[in-house]
Amino acid sequence: MWKRPSSSSNFSRGLWKLLNTRSMSTSRLDASKLQVKRVAQRSEPKPSDELVFGKTFTDHMLTIEWTMDKGWDAPVIKPYGPISLDPASCVLHYAFELFEGLKAYRTEEGKVVLFRAEKNMERMNKSAARICLPGFDSEELIKLIGKLIEEDKHLVPKGQGYSLYIRPTMLGTTDGLGVGYPDKALLYVITSPVGPYYKTGFKAVRLLATDFATRAWPGGVGDKKLGANYAPCVLPQLQAAEKGYQQNLWLFGSEKYITEVGTMNVFFVFKDPKTGKKELVTAPLDGTILEGVTRDSILTLSRERLDPKEWEINERYYTIYEVAERSKKGELVEAFGSGTAVVVSPIKEIGWQGEDIQVPLLPGEQSGELTKTVASWISAIQYGKEQHDNWSRVVADVN
Amino acid sequence: MWKRPSSSSNFSRGLWKLLNTRSMSTSRLDASKLQVKRVAQRSEPKPSDELVFGKTFTDHMLTIEWTMDKGWDAPVIKPYGPISLDPASCVLHYAFELFEGLKAYRTEEGKVVLFRAEKNMERMNKSAARICLPGFDSEELIKLIGKLIEEDKHLVPKGQGYSLYIRPTMLGTTDGLGVGYPDKALLYVITSPVGPYYKTGFKAVRLLATDFATRAWPGGVGDKKLGANYAPCVLPQLQAAEKGYQQNLWLFGSEKYITEVGTMNVFFVFKDPKTGKKELVTAPLDGTILEGVTRDSILTLSRERLDPKEWEINERYYTIYEVAERSKKGELVEAFGSGTAVVVSPIKEIGWQGEDIQVPLLPGEQSGELTKTVASWISAIQYGKEQHDNWSRVVADVN
Repeated sequence: MWKRPSSSSNFSRGLWKLLNTRSMSTSRLDASKLQVKRVAQRSEPKPSDELVFGKTFTDHMLTIEWTMDKGWDAPVIKPYGPISLDPASCVLHYAFELFEGLKAYRTEEGKVVLFRAEKNMERMNKSAARICLPGFDSEELIKLIGKLIEEDKHLVPKGQGYSLYIRPTMLGTTDGLGVGYPDKALLYVITSPVGPYYKTGFKAVRLLATDFATRAWPGGVGDKKLGANYAPCVLPQLQAAEKGYQQNLWLFGSEKYITEVGTMNVFFVFKDPKTGKKELVTAPLDGTILEGVTRDSILTLSRERLDPKEWEINERYYTIYEVAERSKKGELVEAFGSGTAVVVSPIKEIGWQGEDIQVPLLPGEQSGELTKTVASWISAIQYGKEQHDNWSRVVADVN
Repeated sequence: MWKRPSSSSNFSRGLWKLLNTRSMSTSRLDASKLQVKRVAQRSEPKPSDELVFGKTFTDHMLTIEWTMDKGWDAPVIKPYGPISLDPASCVLHYAFELFEGLKAYRTEEGKVVLFRAEKNMERMNKSAARICLPGFDSEELIKLIGKLIEEDKHLVPKGQGYSLYIRPTMLGTTDGLGVGYPDKALLYVITSPVGPYYKTGFKAVRLLATDFATRAWPGGVGDKKLGANYAPCVLPQLQAAEKGYQQNLWLFGSEKYITEVGTMNVFFVFKDPKTGKKELVTAPLDGTILEGVTRDSILTLSRERLDPKEWEINERYYTIYEVAERSKKGELVEAFGSGTAVVVSPIKEIGWQGEDIQVPLLPGEQSGELTKTVASWISAIQYGKEQHDNWSRVVADVN
């Protein structure tokens, strides 16, 4: 028989405290409390061709400390530098860590604009809730990221394909080896000037359809941007690389559903031979798929801009068997990964059961037609050549 | 058609380098290179009743740095203190982190002994390989842990139930946001004097059979001691606690297989009503179950010591449905979790489908009979009252 939960349980009080005090009696994240400690000498921008993704950082970082008792402390912008952690800090043992990835772009008019930052903030809050790290007011963090970019705006690289990659991160920093919810956290943001992922135009990749390792599972955390989802995927990627494939095409279950590629969402285009109608397909957000901002942008723009008489846009389950079969029938049109770092990543081959499924590319080119089209749509919005809803917001002016 | 992998692939060369150079041209972990930097003043032992698991640490820590180019650097014992990490360090973003948990016990003769340390080292090497962190010679690390304990041996607490908890940890420390295998790592060991988990004898726990979250899955990393397995399990534990249950009994799949409890392995005892024979059951090591050292010790000792005419010892799949049904029939005898921190943790109730399955306890006591028996078996070996194979090794002498 079911028994009434004991109200005297420590755990129960803990959860109540966890869920309530954060938004009630403790301090909220407040951008107006920002303190700025600048570097003595600002650095010069690196030549654009020397930028390596995530290896070069700007002069400053944003850090904000949180404790369960006091809430969010005053945000600080300070020189980029090391983080000091107790060796028993829970981030180092139990992976209390999450991150986001978004970009700021320099427009031709010299404005620095963020692309759909509120989507990243929303996802970051969801990631935090899933591992008992504190939530925060998205708009306050966007303001603070704006201030950070303002400090280092001379380091936002110019030109098509160049941008400032922004990496918000949150760590649980409770010192102690007991496994429980963190009562201390550190939110920080670092930024990295980056060049175009494809320096000389697209380069289509070869994928290994992967059922020998599983990226995510129902009831797991595959839809959240947690550190925990990444380290386990590196060995399978090396195993794919050993066979000559750049990335894993992650399959799920005995049905061999296609879920993601590498660290990106993935899209396929099929053609109905009877009607000639094309279908853009990606996996549905069922808890195992990262809620990609680029994924959402591609779906939104495709629904707005592709002619519904010629196109269907579907979030549905589909399998490697369907891809293999439709490839044989000539109904596979193109395929591409999507993510913030790369925008779109065209696919040319998929290794599966000892054979390579050939994914069509435009003659003499390294991508399919829709891949190019969606890349140009998104790029035009990111670099401020075109407006779309409130997807862009100006955070600095380099002039 | 299958194509020959391109030998010019960077990834392929990378994997070759990863798998080969570590054991060939680079330095191996070598305990004889140890450098010791002692604290100015050794601390006094805390009163035993003030020890909180994983909150009090000894004076020193062991650290060893590794780089892909040079291999393992000289080990260093130095004062316990903070670790400095670049904010772009891969451990903080992608959970390149793993740990072990083992204990040293002070015998009545004043020797400090490690319990089955080579099992922990073996598992630590497996965890490292799974996330592309470097392997090491287990015996060398055991020697170094021995040296660390020797430095702080006056802090190993005395008495039944007291011990020194040892936490070896390894982090990937490559600075950079690209997701790939780490080319830098830090191995460190901290130690924490701990008291008995149950200060006043056993206290049986209530579990919530959990199918609303999934701890581990085939093709994942649930059998490895990676940080990635821990943070995602805290929210489900709080959800169980909200309903008045201390821990999750983790189920898997539509079959609702019983896998683990909280952060422990789990054992059930059933009775065959026809033969009167009892069965000790735990889930098989199929890749989703942590290869617990206590689990292995319980299985080994039970196979050696329980009368096969009265007992069957089985590693097999079993479901919450079987437990519920056999409980109704009066065939459920007892159940307990097992792990290094607690040795055994008796179970008294399991919440499932709105009811509580009652798990029998000895009259007026907080555990079943076998639970007590295996606890006493293991304790006798740990505290050197009894020898078993080479399960114990002396690492220091407090006299």
